[in-house]
Amino acid sequence: VTAAAPAPTTDGFGDLVAARVADRRSQLVLGLDPDPARLWPRALELTEDAGLDGTATPAERASTAVRIHCGLAIEAAGEHCVAVKLQVACFERLGAPGWEALGEVAARARDAGLLVIADAKRGDIDVSARAYAQAFFGETQTAYGPVQGIGVDAITANPLLGLDSLWPLVASAREHGGGVFVLVRTSNPGAADLQELALRDGGTLAQRLAAVVSALGADGIGAAGLADIGAVVGATAPEGLRDLRDRMPAAILLLPGVGAQGGHVEDLAPAFAPGPAAALVTVSRGLAQAHERLGGDPAAVAAAEAARIRELAWRLAQ
Amino acid sequence: VTAAAPAPTTDGFGDLVAARVADRRSQLVLGLDPDPARLWPRALELTEDAGLDGTATPAERASTAVRIHCGLAIEAAGEHCVAVKLQVACFERLGAPGWEALGEVAARARDAGLLVIADAKRGDIDVSARAYAQAFFGETQTAYGPVQGIGVDAITANPLLGLDSLWPLVASAREHGGGVFVLVRTSNPGAADLQELALRDGGTLAQRLAAVVSALGADGIGAAGLADIGAVVGATAPEGLRDLRDRMPAAILLLPGVGAQGGHVEDLAPAFAPGPAAALVTVSRGLAQAHERLGGDPAAVAAAEAARIRELAWRLAQ
Repeated sequence: VTAAAPAPTTDGFGDLVAARVADRRSQLVLGLDPDPARLWPRALELTEDAGLDGTATPAERASTAVRIHCGLAIEAAGEHCVAVKLQVACFERLGAPGWEALGEVAARARDAGLLVIADAKRGDIDVSARAYAQAFFGETQTAYGPVQGIGVDAITANPLLGLDSLWPLVASAREHGGGVFVLVRTSNPGAADLQELALRDGGTLAQRLAAVVSALGADGIGAAGLADIGAVVGATAPEGLRDLRDRMPAAILLLPGVGAQGGHVEDLAPAFAPGPAAALVTVSRGLAQAHERLGGDPAAVAAAEAARIRELAWRLAQ
Repeated sequence: VTAAAPAPTTDGFGDLVAARVADRRSQLVLGLDPDPARLWPRALELTEDAGLDGTATPAERASTAVRIHCGLAIEAAGEHCVAVKLQVACFERLGAPGWEALGEVAARARDAGLLVIADAKRGDIDVSARAYAQAFFGETQTAYGPVQGIGVDAITANPLLGLDSLWPLVASAREHGGGVFVLVRTSNPGAADLQELALRDGGTLAQRLAAVVSALGADGIGAAGLADIGAVVGATAPEGLRDLRDRMPAAILLLPGVGAQGGHVEDLAPAFAPGPAAALVTVSRGLAQAHERLGGDPAAVAAAEAARIRELAWRLAQ
């Protein structure tokens, strides 16, 4: 895998993650996948007081409630985390007000000292990939002045369209000191359908994707030894984790699937082999919906679960 | 490839496309990838008259201009087309007003009798795929009432996460009489990096994806012999087109890449083998930006190019 390299950075996403993980003593990522039918009751109460007038649409009301819910979750669990991961689908389904809420939640997370990862899983041909890069990292030139994108620290990307589809996201991330997490081995049961296909020349598709990640990140490795191009590797398939880690020694692994999807933090040790910031553990429903399983006040239970998982991961990484 | 089937439909997307293609005598899809820095001058003029007040943001102004530009393109070229394909990235980069414009352009296209394809290339784990299905086909339940999605006829989907990631999109499309175009062999130069990888058990990844498409669509074949699950197959790689067609005999092929990306309509005959509605030819920059290459009034040139390509495709399909 070869490609022309954008200019290398001196202080890129790898160093940013390393510094934040050390600073916050956490590798935990608060996943925010808000379901407007399952928001915390307190968010619904506060939405009543939010000053929406009688003409507000259901989308505007629900987006306000989603924004408040996410703010409460950040307030409750954020101190135990190093980043948030925003599931873009959950905002997009609320239309324009949902997209507005996405930006507001990202800003709220940044204010709380958290890195912002857009779980967008975008992937498109070069001209469209550049448009997505503008939406998430950069800005768009128009006849009326520039339009700022959301301004995230990292995005998840789908590599199926090949290197030239990833490159605009990589270049834009790098230019803005951000990162890209490329899907390598996802956390869902059907991930194996394609990602575990054996290739004629050896290895699996996931292993090939790992090589792509390693090559893309080669010019973006910072002083901490971590690259700005990471990989999504589901915590639900720990048996392949050590192998993928070996194939991407400098990549930060984003590990979804702990909790609701059945993954266990205890199985993730190989991900941390290069150092404590070499992997980030994302938990979504396992935090914001922990009260449905454990009982108690949603915020208090989310905070306690975040503290527990953070501690598990931190010890594992030492 | 096996999976539990949602309830079959009697009058699904395949029949809808067949009827519209016959009615409009066209397989041409107007691709709308609006670049706010390259809109038609007439769109900028009309934006001045659109009644935006002094407080409108650049994003609001640019989104209004994009909406007007797309409306003009539909007005000019729509009569030669059977559908529009909206590149979601181009709207998303304008934030919430851009998302609003996406819905307005979709409505404008429907009013002009055109099918609406969201070129979103989404793909995510089941719970998130359901959220995307709500955003594009369905609605989202909230404490404040349901929030309607954009309401498209079809979406493009990325299959890398496997069958369980496609299934929610398929089920929702089917429920709403719509379709899904799964990425099989894309039109970009880097498509071969992964899609043409040879598998140990024979064939390429693209051929495996074709099998997935065929299996997913098996329960959604209408009276016209066309399935509701189609495939994106780039017009830039015609050498593999006949093979992929044979592997997906009932799939409607969405063929991007004609024009700016170097594909030629004349090479696409195998795609139409099952019948005139078995393939749709999408042209984006080759229509809306044809005046940059050919000179003349943008609308007139777009209309003339649309008429020309429509006729080429129609003759090819007889």
